[in-house]
Amino acid sequence: DSNLKVFTLSSNPDLADEITKKIGVPMGKSSVQRFSDGEIQINIEESIRGCDIYVVQSTSSPANEHIMELLIMIDALKRASAKTINVVLPYYGYARQDRKARSREPITAKLVANLLETAGATRIITLDLHATQIQGFFDIPVDQLVGVPILANYFEQKNFEDVVIVSPDHGGVVRARKMADRLKAPIAIIDKRRPKPNMSEVMNIVGNIEGKTAIIIDDIIDTAGTMTLAANAMIENGAKAVYACSTHPVLSGPAIDRIQNSQIEELVVTNSIPLPEEKKISKIKQLSVAPLIAKAIVHVHEQRSVSRLFD
Amino acid sequence: DSNLKVFTLSSNPDLADEITKKIGVPMGKSSVQRFSDGEIQINIEESIRGCDIYVVQSTSSPANEHIMELLIMIDALKRASAKTINVVLPYYGYARQDRKARSREPITAKLVANLLETAGATRIITLDLHATQIQGFFDIPVDQLVGVPILANYFEQKNFEDVVIVSPDHGGVVRARKMADRLKAPIAIIDKRRPKPNMSEVMNIVGNIEGKTAIIIDDIIDTAGTMTLAANAMIENGAKAVYACSTHPVLSGPAIDRIQNSQIEELVVTNSIPLPEEKKISKIKQLSVAPLIAKAIVHVHEQRSVSRLFD
Ligand SMILES: Nc1ncnc2c1ncn2[C@@H]1O[C@H](COP(=O)(O)O)[C@@H](O)[C@H]1O
Ligand SMILES: Nc1ncnc2c1ncn2[C@@H]1O[C@H](COP(=O)(O)O)[C@@H](O)[C@H]1O
Repeated sequence: DSNLKVFTLSSNPDLADEITKKIGVPMGKSSVQRFSDGEIQINIEESIRGCDIYVVQSTSSPANEHIMELLIMIDALKRASAKTINVVLPYYGYARQDRKARSREPITAKLVANLLETAGATRIITLDLHATQIQGFFDIPVDQLVGVPILANYFEQKNFEDVVIVSPDHGGVVRARKMADRLKAPIAIIDKRRPKPNMSEVMNIVGNIEGKTAIIIDDIIDTAGTMTLAANAMIENGAKAVYACSTHPVLSGPAIDRIQNSQIEELVVTNSIPLPEEKKISKIKQLSVAPLIAKAIVHVHEQRSVSRLFD
Repeated sequence: DSNLKVFTLSSNPDLADEITKKIGVPMGKSSVQRFSDGEIQINIEESIRGCDIYVVQSTSSPANEHIMELLIMIDALKRASAKTINVVLPYYGYARQDRKARSREPITAKLVANLLETAGATRIITLDLHATQIQGFFDIPVDQLVGVPILANYFEQKNFEDVVIVSPDHGGVVRARKMADRLKAPIAIIDKRRPKPNMSEVMNIVGNIEGKTAIIIDDIIDTAGTMTLAANAMIENGAKAVYACSTHPVLSGPAIDRIQNSQIEELVVTNSIPLPEEKKISKIKQLSVAPLIAKAIVHVHEQRSVSRLFD
């Protein structure tokens, strides 16, 4: 269908390439450059009049650069008479700033939703939002894809004997439950609490992990503090081995060192955020979401339901 | 008036300090930090309920960081129940992307206007927009201050004998005319044209500069190419000496080297964009716009006309 065009920006060019190959369309021609003062200069290098456009961009680090690049691209597409502008956000940056945790804080996840709509986005296709509520920040359709099947599939092939799926906090129990259903395994939850203010946190494990292979699952792995503390608690409490998985490998600051020095055998992530060379360590396995996203784009374009891509 | 609060972000903290001192209010308390992954974390540290807020931020380089910081701050102010959110933009970044010069280009200056309004800005106070038309990109009030009087005042004190004000291109003639009126001097215009495609530009000077002290004026000095070529053309065509002035010192890439090696005696700019240490060379004189902006804030706040600040 020559009405379907995929464009990439600078966050995930390899993923976007893979997506176009899966769909069987050429990569949309555009140039993203910088003026001497660092301002972004975008030009679309082919006619897109009346076309359905899919722009692939994660608003991963540097988040502000990637957001502005995306907004400017959407503006250019709109003014070039695109029929629809479908923003494919494998990773939705600023998603953790989704509520006022303290007084007089911004809700940046909502701000970003408003900015995308103002620029001219007509649909969002995204993957494992930090909070599902973020869908409601938009007045345009949001299709949220789910990474659990990709991660689960990888572990299925390992044929571990006695597995337990672990949520590193109470917020992640629904995700752990989904994974457990797929792997036909029980779940456990790490129950952190601070007995008194200024006392250090106590990690209590709810569920039986003794002698089992624990697979900890979270949506985002950022500084890897939560994940590596959880992994060490697993081993201390009698787990046989511990694996970790997470859709979005933010991996900032001390993350790589912490993973390297932790009890984690292997960390499985997706390419919603690409890994630069220095983060490609042997303990980290990266799986591609290109087949999932390509399928979602084709379904959206043919106006078929994408709901069966959710599980 | 305790209802008036001034906040600064990271582009121009010194200018904002000077503004609060001129007005006689303390600096608004807020913190702008970074999460480990580089996302911006803003918190407003005092109650602002029902207040008229003035946020000082130039969207100068790094433009994207400064724009996102400003948008997130506006979001936080709005959710903290500010009565009005007046954005003070001494330098309006992306102003040169104000029209489609080629097909399928964005109009980023308009996009930025939409983003500011979407975030919740209720008024813009700015200085020497690259194109006055940008005022029309907003649906909220825009007060545009003018830097010419500050620059003219500096040259008046030099008591040069035989002065000519020079516009480096046809787009800047109105600005040069204003300066010339103030200094009671004639004007000259550099008339560039390309006789044939692929032939180099010819610089023709319209007006008499022979034996005079030329003062070239432009709104933005970025890579300094236009300005230094113009300056050298002045000397080659018989000017006695050449000075340059410009409201906004973007000064990117080769700018400092070019100025250093040019015939320009002195370049006079404002602090709409602060100069980092390595750009503070003896040939550059920086004048403060704090008194002008402070006066504009007080006038806006007391609902007095700011139009007399325009000339
Ligand atoms: N980029 C970020 N890195 C670390 N923490 C963040 C980030 N953005 C927001 N937060 C904080 O994370 C908390 C929300 O995380 P959660 O409880 O996991 O939903 C809030 O208190 C936010 O202030
Ligand atoms: N940051 C920038 N640096 C240099 N040129 C720019 C920048 N932004 C836009 N432009 C270009 O400058 C031209 C407009 O400048 P002007 O003719 O002076 O209004 C357009 O062709 C833009 O593509």
